[in-house]
Amino acid sequence: MSDFRIRDLQPEDCRELVNMIKELAEFEGLPEQVKITEETLRRDGFGDRPFYHCLIAEVRNKDSQDGPWLTVGYAMYFYSYGTWVGRMIYLEDLYIKPQYRGKGIGTSMMTKVAQIGVENECQRMQWVVLNWNQGAIDFYKKHDSIDLTSDEKWHLFRMEREELRKFATLHDQTVVKGC
Amino acid sequence: MSDFRIRDLQPEDCRELVNMIKELAEFEGLPEQVKITEETLRRDGFGDRPFYHCLIAEVRNKDSQDGPWLTVGYAMYFYSYGTWVGRMIYLEDLYIKPQYRGKGIGTSMMTKVAQIGVENECQRMQWVVLNWNQGAIDFYKKHDSIDLTSDEKWHLFRMEREELRKFATLHDQTVVKGC
Repeated sequence: MSDFRIRDLQPEDCRELVNMIKELAEFEGLPEQVKITEETLRRDGFGDRPFYHCLIAEVRNKDSQDGPWLTVGYAMYFYSYGTWVGRMIYLEDLYIKPQYRGKGIGTSMMTKVAQIGVENECQRMQWVVLNWNQGAIDFYKKHDSIDLTSDEKWHLFRMEREELRKFATLHDQTVVKGC
Repeated sequence: MSDFRIRDLQPEDCRELVNMIKELAEFEGLPEQVKITEETLRRDGFGDRPFYHCLIAEVRNKDSQDGPWLTVGYAMYFYSYGTWVGRMIYLEDLYIKPQYRGKGIGTSMMTKVAQIGVENECQRMQWVVLNWNQGAIDFYKKHDSIDLTSDEKWHLFRMEREELRKFATLHDQTVVKGC
């Protein structure tokens, strides 16, 4: 039996955070997709203008109160915005190490992100899920979430780095004629 | 013929921004969805911790160089984050008043947001589109964007305000047993 706690990410957690991000990508069969580094996470998650926020889940053996806390998962989130309602909170990623799943830690992390959203006057929480991840979808629907893609036909689009750079260079060439 | 310029939103633009948000919602047949107010936009878009950023498009008659600039559109964006690549820029909304469409103003606004993303070391730009908006989708695909929903089966989920509040209250009740 273990104690469990959730706390904010600290700069010294970033090495372990990269490891967990890679574990998740390997589980999804896409380890080569992870380009992020410990240094980037340190640069972007702290200071006056954090680009993301992150919670860390930790456990400790109940019988060794002086023992170390072991990191077992993370939940990354950031604030987003909608023109119709204003502030929203976006859950980017939630990961619990395989051997610690099924114990309520993931639910606890997700409800904590919701609580942070409510405390910061966010009107909605949003996230994405792969449509074959039925276990997760069942959980979200149980808690009255809406599948905006199925129900309202929203599709998520992306421009990758190279295409974005190319598209950005069009700006100076854009001539607005006869408007 | 008119001159055209793009500039950052200022607090005094927020009244006109709400009007344009409502125009777009009316065009989409959903005017009752707009809950946001001028005051909320003023609170959230400025200061040390802006929750969003916004560009304003303006035109002025070429023959009256001393005449006023007329606001004709907006592009709202914010910074998001991905565990695999880091910083991203998210285009929340782009609107051009009907009588000013088809002149390249929308393209100019979107390429400007891309440019801001590149300047801020964003690795991707993302946005959502309704799957029946074929004209927009054709434009995005012409510029080598990826439809993550069709190609990778990502679905966007949302918890609305009341459901989010209810879900958030579960946090304190979450008991993590025997982990």
